[in-house]
Amino acid sequence: MIAHSEENMPSDRSVSPVTVIRVCGAIMQPAADVLATEEPLEIRIIYQLEGRRKQQPISVTMRTPGEDESLAAGFLLTEGIIQTADQIEAIHACRHSNVIRVRLQADATIDLSKLQRHFYTSSSCGVCGKSSIDAVKTVVPHPLTSEYPVFAGDVVRHAPERLRIAQAVFERTGGLHACALFNSAGQLLRMSEDVGRHNAMDKLIGGELRAGADRFRDSMVFVSGRASFELVQKALMAGIPIIAAIGAPSSLAVQLAAQHEMTLIGFVRSDRFNIYCGGERLREFTA
Amino acid sequence: MIAHSEENMPSDRSVSPVTVIRVCGAIMQPAADVLATEEPLEIRIIYQLEGRRKQQPISVTMRTPGEDESLAAGFLLTEGIIQTADQIEAIHACRHSNVIRVRLQADATIDLSKLQRHFYTSSSCGVCGKSSIDAVKTVVPHPLTSEYPVFAGDVVRHAPERLRIAQAVFERTGGLHACALFNSAGQLLRMSEDVGRHNAMDKLIGGELRAGADRFRDSMVFVSGRASFELVQKALMAGIPIIAAIGAPSSLAVQLAAQHEMTLIGFVRSDRFNIYCGGERLREFTA
Repeated sequence: MIAHSEENMPSDRSVSPVTVIRVCGAIMQPAADVLATEEPLEIRIIYQLEGRRKQQPISVTMRTPGEDESLAAGFLLTEGIIQTADQIEAIHACRHSNVIRVRLQADATIDLSKLQRHFYTSSSCGVCGKSSIDAVKTVVPHPLTSEYPVFAGDVVRHAPERLRIAQAVFERTGGLHACALFNSAGQLLRMSEDVGRHNAMDKLIGGELRAGADRFRDSMVFVSGRASFELVQKALMAGIPIIAAIGAPSSLAVQLAAQHEMTLIGFVRSDRFNIYCGGERLREFTA
Repeated sequence: MIAHSEENMPSDRSVSPVTVIRVCGAIMQPAADVLATEEPLEIRIIYQLEGRRKQQPISVTMRTPGEDESLAAGFLLTEGIIQTADQIEAIHACRHSNVIRVRLQADATIDLSKLQRHFYTSSSCGVCGKSSIDAVKTVVPHPLTSEYPVFAGDVVRHAPERLRIAQAVFERTGGLHACALFNSAGQLLRMSEDVGRHNAMDKLIGGELRAGADRFRDSMVFVSGRASFELVQKALMAGIPIIAAIGAPSSLAVQLAAQHEMTLIGFVRSDRFNIYCGGERLREFTA
């Protein structure tokens, strides 16, 4: 296999600088930080069909830039689209877009039925963090305003412990993600668990919808892991103004939250947390 | 919205009993344990188009059974397919299959272009853990045999620390999953990081493929989080005989590994780990 790129991605694209507000006990101060970069990558294959050259997008995945050629080659093998490395003739990473093209050998037989499974439409203008954010913008049914209620710092700091007490299945298996909805009094209103964190969020939001409660606009959603683009998007679609996570947010999660005037909090512990955007929805930082 | 199910899923479907071998220092003994259940769920919508009733599968997600109606309702809202709860007329969960049908109100307008994004083909015989496992079986290019080399317990126990030392970006951001390939001498051969754990695995496998190294059959892959069905599937497609994880495996991950005679290890710490299947590839359990 000959691997070729117009340009190898510089490794520092894998992290994104950001300014956060660190809240630690009674102290609250801005600090420079770095986030793991999250951006979409569209993988396309170029193959021969009845003597004609065809190009087909097969996947869009949210990934950290770097090793994109390896990601594409690995994806094709692990998803059963190719069987050996020598079925790949060349890999071209575009310099200015998050698109990677894998040209297969003319005699490589690929199973087209495999492709349908992974197809994911993307906007015709290209794939980038900005287009992902714009795509969400067009569909948000209840845009956030600045009229939402304000949460005390203690509600954020106590969320991990309250979630842990409520998380029954996790206690037994250690294998589940959880999402919980809190009100500004610090009450846990609803909690869901799942092996997939996007499913835990969908269960939480769907449960609230089905109960006819719809307390989203006055709530904070708290997640047991990291805050990805997808989780921020789902919270935004439900109209939840504050998302807080035990783990780190990704770069694109922060960009999406900031653009929609949502509050995004990360690294929540019993004595501290980081505010990435929307700090005006928080008050009382004394621990 | 009227919510209706043939039967609510009993909550104990969310965990699966299993027998593990606990290796703790020099002590190695079988123990009863429970895993978070992971099974596919196909979400279908039933809607009216030009006076005709249409049924369309829109997503298959690997989820923990329980709250399936909420998961379906939440998914439709957070992915922008519906805007309000009252666009749902009824939700039917099938009693004997992992299929859930959401009937939309006749006057609900849905954006069909949204559907394509999520479509994921499933076998016509139905969606269940068994069909997911069978689907992998038909495409594994290099089935594992019992001829693979044997790893010492210490190689497993030292893997978390060796990974941590190699994980440069995680150190800076706290926001990345990692996968590493180890040989039986305990050397870290290759490591990849990504915001998505499936991407970290694809980068690792693709990097090895592109380097023409192909040391898969003599290696162990170690993952920084939990071991899901998808990660076991990807390791299997590359022909890696041993997968070990810092976190818990899911039920379907263990079933898939066991059916392919793969070794699956979880909860790896510096002094202990659990063997879920394939213990014959391990030796020397003294710490």
